[in-house]
Amino acid sequence: MTKSTKVNAAILIIGNEILSGRTKDTNTSTIALWLNSIGVIVQEVRVIPDKENIIVETVNKLRKTNNYVFTTGGIGPTHDDITAKSISKSFGLNYEIHKEAFKILESYYKPGEFNEGRQKMAWMPKDANLILNPTSGAPGFSVENVFCLPGVPSILKSMIGGLKNEIAGGKPILSHTISLRTVESEIASSLTEIQNNNKEVEIGSYPFFQAGKLGVSIVMRSEDQSKIDVCSSKILELINKKKIKVVNR
Amino acid sequence: MTKSTKVNAAILIIGNEILSGRTKDTNTSTIALWLNSIGVIVQEVRVIPDKENIIVETVNKLRKTNNYVFTTGGIGPTHDDITAKSISKSFGLNYEIHKEAFKILESYYKPGEFNEGRQKMAWMPKDANLILNPTSGAPGFSVENVFCLPGVPSILKSMIGGLKNEIAGGKPILSHTISLRTVESEIASSLTEIQNNNKEVEIGSYPFFQAGKLGVSIVMRSEDQSKIDVCSSKILELINKKKIKVVNR
Repeated sequence: MTKSTKVNAAILIIGNEILSGRTKDTNTSTIALWLNSIGVIVQEVRVIPDKENIIVETVNKLRKTNNYVFTTGGIGPTHDDITAKSISKSFGLNYEIHKEAFKILESYYKPGEFNEGRQKMAWMPKDANLILNPTSGAPGFSVENVFCLPGVPSILKSMIGGLKNEIAGGKPILSHTISLRTVESEIASSLTEIQNNNKEVEIGSYPFFQAGKLGVSIVMRSEDQSKIDVCSSKILELINKKKIKVVNR
Repeated sequence: MTKSTKVNAAILIIGNEILSGRTKDTNTSTIALWLNSIGVIVQEVRVIPDKENIIVETVNKLRKTNNYVFTTGGIGPTHDDITAKSISKSFGLNYEIHKEAFKILESYYKPGEFNEGRQKMAWMPKDANLILNPTSGAPGFSVENVFCLPGVPSILKSMIGGLKNEIAGGKPILSHTISLRTVESEIASSLTEIQNNNKEVEIGSYPFFQAGKLGVSIVMRSEDQSKIDVCSSKILELINKKKIKVVNR
């Protein structure tokens, strides 16, 4: 039996715009897919408002119960960007101008354009490690196991590649999906049996509508490809027996 | 000064498929927009895995600190659908066949098709209130202030309309957005001043990329339209002064 290394992470989405429903969060998916690929399991996501006491308290909970915490949002130049100040409080660190970040920002902008608003983006917890931003200059930062990224999805995406060496993951979490033209209740009892006989594979069943037709995606997840293959063949046996069609999705 | 009624809710997304990054959550946005329209503020969202002890514990935390809790996911017929059983444990109620739900499901399916998998969807916490499902038969349910909805977005959407009379909201939360062809740092200090002078309006600033160009959406939220209008006119003054273009978004 393979021992799972179980490296865990939490994602903390800081942003009223998600809580109000105005914006749909896509950063969780971006971060989670990347973490899975380097063997880190996301065990919890929280979305909280731009309020200092809530950010401080939530970060302090999550950083103790997870190997890593990734925050998104609140690191820009406006009044509602309070992540850096809040993280400083979480760790009891001074909130001050980060010299390296200041230099990066100063050289990113044209002479005369590095105004007060932009300078705010150089304020960070004392001695934070920078996370470089190849898209728009302003760096993110990390303190111990807490990594602070921006909320704009395209900028966030461009920054996580640079984090790989900072994260000690486990075995990559592999997955295989089989999508079927059926309904869950047709396969529920057989799937339960397959899950019970293959406890080291997490089997999920997700109904979908596609072009007006019902379907079910069966997702198998494990660190061990051979165990996924065993489940997969059991599922193929089942659908052959029941004459269920496999569909692309 | 208008006293805020502050009716709060939490949304609890139950589902490994969100934590793995495979699926992007859109139910938060659907529920939050609807709640805002009936005067309920979403103060927290959590995404947790399909694990009974975690569901029980999280529901028991959230239902005590929020007026309402909405869960999504885990109420189908397969082995990974454990929401109803977990909610029963949260409230210390028997998990049993709900007679009314059983009748609804029995009459929804053709004779002979109401199999064991489908019957599982009639198992609920004792005396739960049903939430009718106009799309696919299987009802959701509520116990006290916890409302359990399915994970499939189109089905969830069709069910929340029927909940309106169950929720005692406050004043609707109104919002107005002005989108600008500018960058945050151009307007940051003026926005801070406007926010400081208008504390009863929550002003958010959200950068975006659209057709390769940078922009910023300013979102003003309040229960009081006249207060939003005051902020709005201040922002229009600012952008006239700075010759910033308003854009559609």
